[in-house]
Amino acid sequence: MIERIAILGTGLLGTSVGLALRSGGFGGSIVGWNRSRGQAETALAMGAIDSIGEDAIATAKASQVVLLAVPIFATLDYMEQLAPVLGPEHLVTDVGSTKREITDFAGRLFNTPERAAFLPGHPMAGKERGGADLGDGNLFRGAVWLFTDNPQWQRSQQSEALARDWREWVIRMGSRTIDLGPQRHDELVAWVSHLPQFTATALSALLESEVGDAPELKDVGGRALREMTRLGASPFSMWRDIAHTNTDAVAAALQALEQSLAHIRENLRTPELRDEFEKANRFRRE
Amino acid sequence: MIERIAILGTGLLGTSVGLALRSGGFGGSIVGWNRSRGQAETALAMGAIDSIGEDAIATAKASQVVLLAVPIFATLDYMEQLAPVLGPEHLVTDVGSTKREITDFAGRLFNTPERAAFLPGHPMAGKERGGADLGDGNLFRGAVWLFTDNPQWQRSQQSEALARDWREWVIRMGSRTIDLGPQRHDELVAWVSHLPQFTATALSALLESEVGDAPELKDVGGRALREMTRLGASPFSMWRDIAHTNTDAVAAALQALEQSLAHIRENLRTPELRDEFEKANRFRRE
Repeated sequence: MIERIAILGTGLLGTSVGLALRSGGFGGSIVGWNRSRGQAETALAMGAIDSIGEDAIATAKASQVVLLAVPIFATLDYMEQLAPVLGPEHLVTDVGSTKREITDFAGRLFNTPERAAFLPGHPMAGKERGGADLGDGNLFRGAVWLFTDNPQWQRSQQSEALARDWREWVIRMGSRTIDLGPQRHDELVAWVSHLPQFTATALSALLESEVGDAPELKDVGGRALREMTRLGASPFSMWRDIAHTNTDAVAAALQALEQSLAHIRENLRTPELRDEFEKANRFRRE
Repeated sequence: MIERIAILGTGLLGTSVGLALRSGGFGGSIVGWNRSRGQAETALAMGAIDSIGEDAIATAKASQVVLLAVPIFATLDYMEQLAPVLGPEHLVTDVGSTKREITDFAGRLFNTPERAAFLPGHPMAGKERGGADLGDGNLFRGAVWLFTDNPQWQRSQQSEALARDWREWVIRMGSRTIDLGPQRHDELVAWVSHLPQFTATALSALLESEVGDAPELKDVGGRALREMTRLGASPFSMWRDIAHTNTDAVAAALQALEQSLAHIRENLRTPELRDEFEKANRFRRE
C-alpha cells in the first residue's frame, strides 16, 4: 500500500534505506532530497532513489511516507515545518539516535486524526563514517530497529495503516523490530551505543596525545587496538546532537565507567581483578 | 640452520607458531610439551608439532631452540629451571606480553658466552580466547613481533647465530620485527595493548551489571557494542601476570583514560567536545 516514499537526507542511512527497500522488493517511487545536492546525486547514481526532489517540503507533500534521515536537531526542524503542511494521508518516520525529544515533538505536532502520523524509529546500524557513497543495502540485515511509538496516539485509519506497512518494510529490509518507551530507549542506548562511542573517542583522543607522533607504533597494537579505536573516526557533527539530547543518561554512563576503570586500577594486584574479568566474561558468554 | 625446535606450552600461541613455521617452510623437527596433555595432543593432531616430549626440561635439552609460550610467571619459572641445564649451543626465546622482568632475568641467567642465549620476544597477535584448538598458522601474518634484545650481551657465536636465524623465521611466519628497549616496550604496550584490554574488561563488566539481565538487548548495540566488548571474553589467567608485571604503566594509562572520559562528560554540551572528536579523528586518519 505504500507507493511513494520521500527520503529527506540521503547520507549513509537515507541511501542505505533506499537500497534496502529496493532489495526488499519495494516497487514504488523513492524521491530523495539532500541539502547538499552532491549527496542526492550519489544516491541517485547508486539506485537508492529514483529522482531528486525540487525542495524538501514539496517532496514530502507529494509522498505518502516521509523518512527523515538527518541529525536530531535537523529532524526536529523538519518536524516543525512538516506538521502544518501534511495531513492524515501521510506518515512521517525517522532514524534519530535519541528518542525522547523527537517522541515528545511527535505527540505535540502529529498523531491526531486530522494530522499526519509520526512513527519515531531508530535502526541500530551505522558506520564510523557517513556519506551516500558508503550506503549499503545490507546495513539493516540482522540489526534491531527500535520504535518508540505511543499506543495512546489517535491517528487517522489511513496513516495508521501506513505506519503498520512501514513496519513490514523494516522487516523486509532485514531488521527485527522492538518497541519500547522513549525514556527507556534513551537510557538503554546510553549504555549500549553512546557509552561505547564516547569511550572509543576518549581512548582514541588519549592515544593521539600519547603515541600519535609515532604512527608506525599504531601497528603494534594489532586487532585489539584497531577495534577499540575504530569508532574514533566518528564525526562530531552527528554525535553533538546525541550529546545534547541525551546528556544526563550519557553522563551517568560515563561516570560509571570512570569508576569501573578506577576500580580495576586500584586492584591490578588484588584478587578483585579476577571478579571484574569474570563479570566481563559473563557479558560475552554466548 | 635451526633444525630442532621445542615449544613449551602448546596453547593458542605455541600451536600457532608451530603451524606458522610449517607453512613458512620449516622442515626440521618440532617437539611440543604442555602441562595439560590434552592441549599437546590437540597441537599434535593439528600438525603444529611432530611429537610430544617426555618432560619439559628433557625436551628443551634435546632441541636447539626452545620457545616458551606460557604466561609470564610460568616463563620466569622455566627460565630459572632451564638456565643451569642448557649451554651455548641453545637459544631460548619467548612470547611474553611484558618484557622488563623477563629481559632482566635474561641478562642475569642467560646471554654469557658459556650459557644459552635468551632472545626476549613478543608477537603482537592473539585472540580473545586461548587454547590449542584455536591455533592458526596465519595469526602472525601482518603482525609486528617485538624484540627487547640487548646488544651488550656477550653470547657464544653458536647461540648468536641461532638468534639471527630465529628472527628470519619470525619474518617467514609473516611478521615484521621491531627492536626496542624493555622499559619503552612496557610503556608502549601499556597504551596500545593493555589499556584497550582493561577498557574492554571494565566496559563489559559494567554492562553486565547494567543490562546483563536483558540478554536480547545486547543485540540492540550492534557492531559497535560487539567490537568494544569482544576483549571482555579474555581470560583472567593471562591478564593477571600482565597486571602484576606492568602495574605502574597500566595504572598510569587507566588514570589518564579516566580523566579523558571525565573531560568528555563535563563537556557534553560545550565546544570542547568537538576538540576531543577531532583529536580522535586524527588518531584514525589513514
